[in-house]
Amino acid sequence: MTVLVNGQKTTQTSALDRGLLYGQNLFETIAVVRGRACLLDAHLDRLVRGCGVLGIPLNVDLLTQEIVEFVKGQDKAVLRITVSMGRGGRGYLNPQTPEPSRILSLHNYPAHPVPYWEEGIEIGVVDIRLGHQPALAGIKHGNRLEQVIARSQWHSDWQEALVLDQLGNVVEGTQSNVFMVSGENLFTPSLTLAGVAGVVREYIISQAHKLGLTVKTMSLSIDDIAAADEVFLTNSVIGLWPVRKFNSRIYAEHDISHKLLKLMIKNEVISNYKT
Amino acid sequence: MTVLVNGQKTTQTSALDRGLLYGQNLFETIAVVRGRACLLDAHLDRLVRGCGVLGIPLNVDLLTQEIVEFVKGQDKAVLRITVSMGRGGRGYLNPQTPEPSRILSLHNYPAHPVPYWEEGIEIGVVDIRLGHQPALAGIKHGNRLEQVIARSQWHSDWQEALVLDQLGNVVEGTQSNVFMVSGENLFTPSLTLAGVAGVVREYIISQAHKLGLTVKTMSLSIDDIAAADEVFLTNSVIGLWPVRKFNSRIYAEHDISHKLLKLMIKNEVISNYKT
Repeated sequence: MTVLVNGQKTTQTSALDRGLLYGQNLFETIAVVRGRACLLDAHLDRLVRGCGVLGIPLNVDLLTQEIVEFVKGQDKAVLRITVSMGRGGRGYLNPQTPEPSRILSLHNYPAHPVPYWEEGIEIGVVDIRLGHQPALAGIKHGNRLEQVIARSQWHSDWQEALVLDQLGNVVEGTQSNVFMVSGENLFTPSLTLAGVAGVVREYIISQAHKLGLTVKTMSLSIDDIAAADEVFLTNSVIGLWPVRKFNSRIYAEHDISHKLLKLMIKNEVISNYKT
Repeated sequence: MTVLVNGQKTTQTSALDRGLLYGQNLFETIAVVRGRACLLDAHLDRLVRGCGVLGIPLNVDLLTQEIVEFVKGQDKAVLRITVSMGRGGRGYLNPQTPEPSRILSLHNYPAHPVPYWEEGIEIGVVDIRLGHQPALAGIKHGNRLEQVIARSQWHSDWQEALVLDQLGNVVEGTQSNVFMVSGENLFTPSLTLAGVAGVVREYIISQAHKLGLTVKTMSLSIDDIAAADEVFLTNSVIGLWPVRKFNSRIYAEHDISHKLLKLMIKNEVISNYKT
């Protein structure tokens, strides 16, 4: 695996980086297709928004240059970008003159079976419930223990799992966003109190009208999900997986899911799962 | 500053450590007095409890040896221990055979004015409110963005600040636990939904009966704090600071606070602020 830390080829970073000490960092996971980072502008937008919240003065131009250079010649891969606050004194107080770290790493594209896209996946609900934190909701920050615990709670026959908040509302998948289709409407949970606003989620929200769909962002319950015509999950690596089975509910329809998947592949905003 | 990573004198660690990627780590901040880490057993107990929650297989004996050796000859200092999950694959799934990292760093003992202990400090309340997460409450894990943001919200005339939860209950100080005295009773917020169960907090709860005090752990509001006879804050570095001023409320009494402070200094569970 290739790793670049602040422009240098190394796998090492400071043991006193506030990214490690307090999780004071942000990350982006991006599909790389034919030497290009997919939806890079949208990923950088979210990253910059997160840097604003965490007080990290990121040099975006420098980072962008590094990314473009780093993924050149990569046919199909996954890029992770981590931007952290860098070193400071002991304690929570932010350093007066922060020197943020930029970490880029390239990973193999995961080898998922083709039926996950074509026939759909099985999902469940994990036990852990997300806390409400409006100050951090939406951004992809480095405080991810809830997701690590959620991932450890998957059953072996699941390919993803929904995570609820403390009130029992559906927030997202463990590592994806969730949509449901009901008639001509697309519904997805609002993420103002918890969850990560995925870049593919944003793309779908902005493009759904092209398929004659109206998007509504609102509170969704498990019962809503079970009653939907279609359910699908999105992230930047898989793109979109329809849900085939959720608890005892079997979804027979994947029309809208497949139309959105095809649209994204055609527009090269995600990788083509067939190639 | 001296830093020890997995027994080696270095300031570098893996840029792909899950401690950095997801905040999957735990830490302890310990006062070192005359070559000894204060309340070390209690700190290690909490650390081990946290490792259980985060799935980190810590070798406690090895860590303990390293600590004892590391602080030898240090007259007055602050030790930070960080134990993290180490490297894994990309994604939230825990590694099958984790290789945790141990990071020890020694820091100067902070130079706080003596009146902070003797006359007390001024505090306020920060805007950010802690999310409820019973799965992580109590342990000192590495997901500390709420505290970093809280610290950035202090007014310049405060020496600490209370943090509330989403319901408006008092949870703790930004970097301390809070107690209030009312008659012969000591009250401190319960930490089952949010907050860090401090080692000095536990010590005071276990020793208060020696001063004829009853301890009650319960929900406390800002109004409760304002109406108390005495209020004080505790952590492993400062030990105990009485509160002199909270918003418009001035506390004239610090009797119990000073008795507890003296008891802890006498028993060498914290550093003596006078020396």
